[in-house]
Amino acid sequence: MNQTIEILLNHSSVRNFTDQPVSEETINTILRCAQMAPTSSFFQAYTIIRVEDPEKRQALQEFSGGQKWVTSAPLALLFCADVHRNMGILDVEDKEVFHNTESFTVSVADATFAAQKAFIAAQALGLGGVVVGGIRNNMPGIAQLFNLPDMVFPLFLLCLGYPKHKNDPKPRLPLQFICGVDQYPTIDNDQLFADYDKEILDYMHQLTQGRESFGFVDRLSFALKNKPRYEVTDFVKSKGFLKK
Amino acid sequence: MNQTIEILLNHSSVRNFTDQPVSEETINTILRCAQMAPTSSFFQAYTIIRVEDPEKRQALQEFSGGQKWVTSAPLALLFCADVHRNMGILDVEDKEVFHNTESFTVSVADATFAAQKAFIAAQALGLGGVVVGGIRNNMPGIAQLFNLPDMVFPLFLLCLGYPKHKNDPKPRLPLQFICGVDQYPTIDNDQLFADYDKEILDYMHQLTQGRESFGFVDRLSFALKNKPRYEVTDFVKSKGFLKK
Repeated sequence: MNQTIEILLNHSSVRNFTDQPVSEETINTILRCAQMAPTSSFFQAYTIIRVEDPEKRQALQEFSGGQKWVTSAPLALLFCADVHRNMGILDVEDKEVFHNTESFTVSVADATFAAQKAFIAAQALGLGGVVVGGIRNNMPGIAQLFNLPDMVFPLFLLCLGYPKHKNDPKPRLPLQFICGVDQYPTIDNDQLFADYDKEILDYMHQLTQGRESFGFVDRLSFALKNKPRYEVTDFVKSKGFLKK
Repeated sequence: MNQTIEILLNHSSVRNFTDQPVSEETINTILRCAQMAPTSSFFQAYTIIRVEDPEKRQALQEFSGGQKWVTSAPLALLFCADVHRNMGILDVEDKEVFHNTESFTVSVADATFAAQKAFIAAQALGLGGVVVGGIRNNMPGIAQLFNLPDMVFPLFLLCLGYPKHKNDPKPRLPLQFICGVDQYPTIDNDQLFADYDKEILDYMHQLTQGRESFGFVDRLSFALKNKPRYEVTDFVKSKGFLKK
């Protein structure tokens, strides 16, 4: 099969890494690939912070609820939605345009496009990794740690390294739930969904050697109950986003 | 060079397509790759609508300010941030968690991860395309056209097909503007930025055979002045997002 398609289909999160360091050449290729992501109106509205300082890694690990791969990954890239840089560069009289929902959306999308491209580049070079959104548990802490100016929003940490172990890809929702033709897809097949819920239960059961027996619904419901992250709203607004 | 890295580095938008249709097998591979994108807490908080109906394509073209590739592309995939589906499935008493900034951010990121992966899959299969954010000029129109329920936000249209012509990749900002180590990168090199502005001017001048002579600053400032899209805020809130 096409090498690239194989990489894309075989994605699964990697949280255990060998000691092999990631060379500067590899890091540079990953970052160059990230930069070549599509970007809305060419705004390039994101910033990447490479986190090397062990104390800052340790702080991020605490913010993320103790996820140990935040400190053990040889490479950790913090992707931020960034409107600040363009505010300093562009010649726009009506500064309010930077603060509306469109601007927030574009910067989150730009950062995510770049992160996905960095992730795939890393996978193409033999690395694996995981996107850690758990850092959003303490956004003021991150802003302080990295001296983030207003209008910069730390989105997630991409932890990368050479895999010690790689899980099988996790089964996604049946395509008909996700994709419609010419209209929004309506779910009218309870059995199909029940089968999927069971599929996830079996997958997680096997992955955790029986320690976890949650299906799709239970797993996601638990995640949402435990990480509502209401404080993200205050942070985002305090930094100048979503004002209009 | 690694085939995948080559694809990632050689990205540029394609807006002119040959008549060659995109086979169902190819479309299916693109969609399967999209689904294997990372997703926050496994929420899979996005929906893809494949737009085949010529009238709907025509409407989208008008919404996007007349971008002709919206109708001419053999394949058009509308990526939506989608919290609606999970609201119907998950067992969460406090429904307010779906309406906060965290939930909006996660769904935009999930949709974008999937879109980037679809785009790279397409490029790996010999297609090219462009992300059309211009559809956000008329979000109520889109919601009506595709019968979108509340808590679904149409983000962009990915137009794909076999390239008639492919431009050279557009030069990105120098890496030191985008990427810092252990702290937010501060720009203190005016000459480097001026050189980049000139690089973009030259690139656009050549690309448009002299019709356009804008540098980075002028181009982006123009885009922002002409597409502030303040009405995105009202739409997003009217659909239930960003309430908390």
